[in-house]
Amino acid sequence: MKDGIEQYKRWLSRYAKLDLIYIKSGGDVNKLPKERILYNEAVKLIKYIRKNSFNILLDKSAKQLSSEAFSKFLNDIFMHSNKAEILFTIGGVHGVDNSLESKFDMKLSLSRMTFTHEFTVLILLEQLYRAFKIINNEKYHY
Amino acid sequence: MKDGIEQYKRWLSRYAKLDLIYIKSGGDVNKLPKERILYNEAVKLIKYIRKNSFNILLDKSAKQLSSEAFSKFLNDIFMHSNKAEILFTIGGVHGVDNSLESKFDMKLSLSRMTFTHEFTVLILLEQLYRAFKIINNEKYHY
Repeated sequence: MKDGIEQYKRWLSRYAKLDLIYIKSGGDVNKLPKERILYNEAVKLIKYIRKNSFNILLDKSAKQLSSEAFSKFLNDIFMHSNKAEILFTIGGVHGVDNSLESKFDMKLSLSRMTFTHEFTVLILLEQLYRAFKIINNEKYHY
Repeated sequence: MKDGIEQYKRWLSRYAKLDLIYIKSGGDVNKLPKERILYNEAVKLIKYIRKNSFNILLDKSAKQLSSEAFSKFLNDIFMHSNKAEILFTIGGVHGVDNSLESKFDMKLSLSRMTFTHEFTVLILLEQLYRAFKIINNEKYHY
């Protein structure tokens, strides 16, 4: 999985600057109460939710976009918004603290299904790569 | 990607017998007309769509299930149907020939987004693995 993530990071570097930031829960997620985990994560996460970012929370129950619509959506942000970057947030074991939800500009679902965090990263990177290919009218393999 | 597929195949072998069958289009998909490709693939695909299989066609526009619902759905087929196996079909570059659509028992979507075929296989295997973990009440990593 890690190899796949590294490969997409290399491929994506042609199109955009990409940072992958992993936030530690700061304790044993199997032992700490849910509220404590969400709070610990929220304290660390909030500093990445910036005013000049377009902040997207991945949420499996949210709206889904086709790959074409996703690429158009990204292009619109790059071309027509005053946002300098796009932040995609994947929640932790218990999701993201309620107090942060209003800070996001949008919720997006990649699938109704649940994936591991790493798998979700891989799917997101694949779709970002596909989106840049579509934006640039480049051929993509099937 | 291939390594990931192999790994999930190994993990899944604890729970079920799994065959991955790749059908060749029998020609250059960039040169042959769409109808010809669909026909070539259909002729090869049809023999795998058996009466004693529960035949599922993956289609990004179809109904989606949560991972929990997918696991319950698989369990119901195994426990309460007279089907000996489940076939998941991922269409080719142009999908699956219309003449075959009525042969499937169900259409299922993993996501509205488009993935490469190999990536779709990987996502499907991950969800099958997760489904068996859920069915067997086993812990799954996040």
